[in-house]
Amino acid sequence: MTNTSGPVAPTPGPLSALQPLPAGAARLGAGGLLGGWQERNATATLPHCIENLDSNGNLANLHRVIGEHDGEFTGFWFADSDVYKTLEAAAWELGRGAGPTAEALRDFLAETAALLEKAQDPDGYLDSYYQVEHRDKQWAELHFSHEMYCAGHLIQAAVAAARSIPGDPGAKQVVTVARRLADLLVERYGPGGLEALDGHPEVETALVELYRLTGHQPYLELARRFVDLRGHGLVGEDRKLGPRYYLDHAPVRSADEVTGHAVRQLYLLAGAVDVAVETGDAELLGATERLWDSALGTKTYLTGGQGSRHRDEAFGDPYELPPDRAYAETCAAIGSFQWAWRLLLATGKPRYADEMERVLYNGIAAATGLDGRSFFYSNPLQLRTGHDGSHEDAPSQRLAWYSCACCPPNLARLMASLHSYVATADDTGLQLHLYAAGSYTAAGHTVEVRTTYPWDEQVTVTVTEAADQPWTLALRVPAWCDDVRLTVNDSPVRAGAQEGYLRLTRTWRAGDRVELTLAMPPRLVAAHPRVDAVRGTVAAVRGPLVYCLEQADVPARHGVLEDLVLDPARPIQVRTADGIVPVVLDLGMRSLTESPALYATYGASPEAGPGSTVPAIPYFLWANRSAGPMRVWIPLAPQDV
Amino acid sequence: MTNTSGPVAPTPGPLSALQPLPAGAARLGAGGLLGGWQERNATATLPHCIENLDSNGNLANLHRVIGEHDGEFTGFWFADSDVYKTLEAAAWELGRGAGPTAEALRDFLAETAALLEKAQDPDGYLDSYYQVEHRDKQWAELHFSHEMYCAGHLIQAAVAAARSIPGDPGAKQVVTVARRLADLLVERYGPGGLEALDGHPEVETALVELYRLTGHQPYLELARRFVDLRGHGLVGEDRKLGPRYYLDHAPVRSADEVTGHAVRQLYLLAGAVDVAVETGDAELLGATERLWDSALGTKTYLTGGQGSRHRDEAFGDPYELPPDRAYAETCAAIGSFQWAWRLLLATGKPRYADEMERVLYNGIAAATGLDGRSFFYSNPLQLRTGHDGSHEDAPSQRLAWYSCACCPPNLARLMASLHSYVATADDTGLQLHLYAAGSYTAAGHTVEVRTTYPWDEQVTVTVTEAADQPWTLALRVPAWCDDVRLTVNDSPVRAGAQEGYLRLTRTWRAGDRVELTLAMPPRLVAAHPRVDAVRGTVAAVRGPLVYCLEQADVPARHGVLEDLVLDPARPIQVRTADGIVPVVLDLGMRSLTESPALYATYGASPEAGPGSTVPAIPYFLWANRSAGPMRVWIPLAPQDV
Repeated sequence: MTNTSGPVAPTPGPLSALQPLPAGAARLGAGGLLGGWQERNATATLPHCIENLDSNGNLANLHRVIGEHDGEFTGFWFADSDVYKTLEAAAWELGRGAGPTAEALRDFLAETAALLEKAQDPDGYLDSYYQVEHRDKQWAELHFSHEMYCAGHLIQAAVAAARSIPGDPGAKQVVTVARRLADLLVERYGPGGLEALDGHPEVETALVELYRLTGHQPYLELARRFVDLRGHGLVGEDRKLGPRYYLDHAPVRSADEVTGHAVRQLYLLAGAVDVAVETGDAELLGATERLWDSALGTKTYLTGGQGSRHRDEAFGDPYELPPDRAYAETCAAIGSFQWAWRLLLATGKPRYADEMERVLYNGIAAATGLDGRSFFYSNPLQLRTGHDGSHEDAPSQRLAWYSCACCPPNLARLMASLHSYVATADDTGLQLHLYAAGSYTAAGHTVEVRTTYPWDEQVTVTVTEAADQPWTLALRVPAWCDDVRLTVNDSPVRAGAQEGYLRLTRTWRAGDRVELTLAMPPRLVAAHPRVDAVRGTVAAVRGPLVYCLEQADVPARHGVLEDLVLDPARPIQVRTADGIVPVVLDLGMRSLTESPALYATYGASPEAGPGSTVPAIPYFLWANRSAGPMRVWIPLAPQDV
Repeated sequence: MTNTSGPVAPTPGPLSALQPLPAGAARLGAGGLLGGWQERNATATLPHCIENLDSNGNLANLHRVIGEHDGEFTGFWFADSDVYKTLEAAAWELGRGAGPTAEALRDFLAETAALLEKAQDPDGYLDSYYQVEHRDKQWAELHFSHEMYCAGHLIQAAVAAARSIPGDPGAKQVVTVARRLADLLVERYGPGGLEALDGHPEVETALVELYRLTGHQPYLELARRFVDLRGHGLVGEDRKLGPRYYLDHAPVRSADEVTGHAVRQLYLLAGAVDVAVETGDAELLGATERLWDSALGTKTYLTGGQGSRHRDEAFGDPYELPPDRAYAETCAAIGSFQWAWRLLLATGKPRYADEMERVLYNGIAAATGLDGRSFFYSNPLQLRTGHDGSHEDAPSQRLAWYSCACCPPNLARLMASLHSYVATADDTGLQLHLYAAGSYTAAGHTVEVRTTYPWDEQVTVTVTEAADQPWTLALRVPAWCDDVRLTVNDSPVRAGAQEGYLRLTRTWRAGDRVELTLAMPPRLVAAHPRVDAVRGTVAAVRGPLVYCLEQADVPARHGVLEDLVLDPARPIQVRTADGIVPVVLDLGMRSLTESPALYATYGASPEAGPGSTVPAIPYFLWANRSAGPMRVWIPLAPQDV
């Protein structure tokens, strides 16, 4: 029962409102922003990842298992996972054609598949850290080991290969290796086996996907078992990190807030949705939706970033969202995107697509430099004058690689499969959730989307293939948009959004053309008063894009970015520009005349000096021109708070 | 050349403006706040520390070195330092008489001294972590090992014992052990020896103090060497923590800001002042004063707490001072106090005494519960509704002990020697820096201070012993005070403060009485606009005390503390109260009617509801009644920002 599709292919059922498009049914056009990212990923990020797996020793770690390398193990003990994520990215990329990089990717896939098969133990075990000098610790320190985390990423690579290049010999080999490891997990930890959990969730969603690929029920059962066993103290005592870090403090079904290590929390919840959908477990699905409310209501940055704390890479308390020390790990943003995608497919609710859009254009997009070869791991919403950027955990600029390099290949696998997340289908027709130039096909209908969204407000959807029967084209109206206009074949259509979507039902003909206009006036956004860290500030947004100020754009006479305040009465000018920033927002700013004292008796507000215009740029483009200070949340002139 | 005094006994010289009082020349009265803390320390904290050294295995670690214990090493690898700090505290306490606890303390000191002598290697080496199974790593991982850090604390204990109970056999034994270890350090790392540094500064100040005690020049030379070698990359590569963590990124003389691990930074700077004073190195002293400006100007909490980051227990960027995630480690506050004391002695500048007062009454005092047996390690300025207090690094209440228990015995040694920091002497007379009931003697003059400061504004200084010659009594006027009144024998005296001190020069007679009134109207304080984390808020202070709001005092109809805003137009009422809080400040508060959205289009400010009065209590007393939410920085009603 191979389901040829992208990441996440739910079995149709009562908890499966929408279906992803089949493989090949979605293609991004090179002219759009998302298509551009996918292209950059193919030509820069993915080759860069493969090079770094080599130069950083990840592949050598596997070679030393079979005696082909005699150096030390290098990198973190879960370094295999970077190989698997890159393998997954290569598979998705090959599935969409891969163009001039196809041969190199096929070689990488074939060589890596062969290497994995050789490195795998006869019983199916595979983990290069534990297969040489740490044999005695195999399976013995699961709270720490990431053995199942790595297995999960291997399985996801195998699923990607099977879905996107099913006939490829390397793909088949990876699937064989992954199944042997998954079978070992079932044998050891399935019903009747040991009750144990990996400290880092990830294998849950992978096992469900492998079940979807193979129809082999024990994979699903094991995934459900892992989800249900969590929260009962099985991960074991860890006084330093505590059970919340591992999400072992409360079962998913009864947890009342997202907490602990953000990536672990988000991967676990993605897996829980998968389990709920495949087992028809509405209670479990409901629990994940409640946790989503908690995350989005109190613990999510304006950029969609999650996990505010550097310490333990963790979610903070409710409303603890400091912009300068925002950890907002790239992998957490990706995890949030993956979780939201699963919830969208399960429920069809537009809020999940809204969140996918927000985190994609801001929290995720900011992580990759324009060169496609530099990355942020943490994604702060402010960089201060005088920032110490000497630590990997809070650098002033994107770095080419990290000692813990989880993020770059995670970006690569997301970008390589990005076309899969734009549209879905159901019995009524096609739903467009993201607006990206490209073509999308479902049930004999194909639409072609032309747009430079989110730079431009216009989206043109042309039907290029139509079956001769009524069919519904559903167009998402983003929650940020309160001015939508629509024409079909140049005739205005009054179509109110129902539950977040404009639904156009008719017997479509090839050549029919829908023009959607999502008005994008620039807006100022304020945070809930409990978000103490940004009290008295606003952020400028336009459409789905969060904007920021960079020191590079501050006129010299104004000095330091931190001393500028916004005059909210001055209208924001939208200005199209050349160069790397197509659309800037010109903000009316003034400089504060400040006293030097760190603390002083409360009295008159500091004086605000004469005004000036400073352009704000999209947050995701920050630090591409210089490494200077930046801020998303802009202080209001004192009298305007 | 034994100098019988308290902690820090500078050799008189050009960089030694003030001298501490000789041993026995300062005594705190039991009726005052500081005297009460010292008494609580003697009867509760110090016995509690000794019990915990036993129950947590610190003493057992030393017993296993000599085969008297066969369990595992327990606790952190630098667990010996807790023994030494407690030993130092016991020595200071015995020096001031110790009352009913004297016998137990003498037993502890004698037994521990004997144990240390037995545990010490023939060459002088002593470190229970490295003397059993880690022999091969001895001196081999100095960036990590804390071997010299532990040595430093042993030396400080020895100095304390020699100064406060010089005739005690246990004291002599500790001095012998400490000198043997110090001699080993000199041999290995002194001029001509290895160039190496401990990752955690502390030994520098200890070596200078040992030099002051013994007159043995090589100790001073080694301390100077350690200070000068720092900042040249000697600590070695550590990609995760980086050179700033170890203060090895720049020499003290050229560093331009406090940075890295806060306690390490502050201990290093205390040691640098000691070296500067004893070597007459005005350049080095000047460098520490510049760094003090940097710390106080951009990186210090209103409570005097320093080191805002949980991650790496580190100083943040300039103005990065989040109240909720304030790490503000207790040991850093103590380190700041110790640094300021050394700078006060060296320069006589009142700002250092101001800072000692601020951090003592706020950042340090808050760390100990009223029971004297519970402690904060981190000292946040805000605890949120819904705070996850399950981690040791950010608990909701003081804990009895910590897995890294550096703070409780550090508090014990400070409190046991607290009388030493109140007054100093110079050629002209006596200086009172802190106002605490007690008696203080210098050069044949004794004054008795009666006051309930800082609850009350009045300080009565009575001369009880006078030499028949002109003599100057100097009274510090705190920087927060702009209304000082003074009478001598009931006659008003017009005495303007000169450089922060009122100086009364006359031929004093026994019975002369000075009445000092330091007016303490409650005030609201605001932070520099660059402290983004507290924009739009104020803090209530009175005299040296920072106040805070606790949920326990919020009337039920107002709901959650976070939803209250201050009406700054309503006068603050000072109210004396019974119970654990002698003086509360009644603040006019209103509740915000909030919308639930985490982010919304900027527009009208939220409505503030009807007013109410909520009492604020001194910050240092928080979490003594319940573990609920707390905040120092109080949002202003929107129109008052």
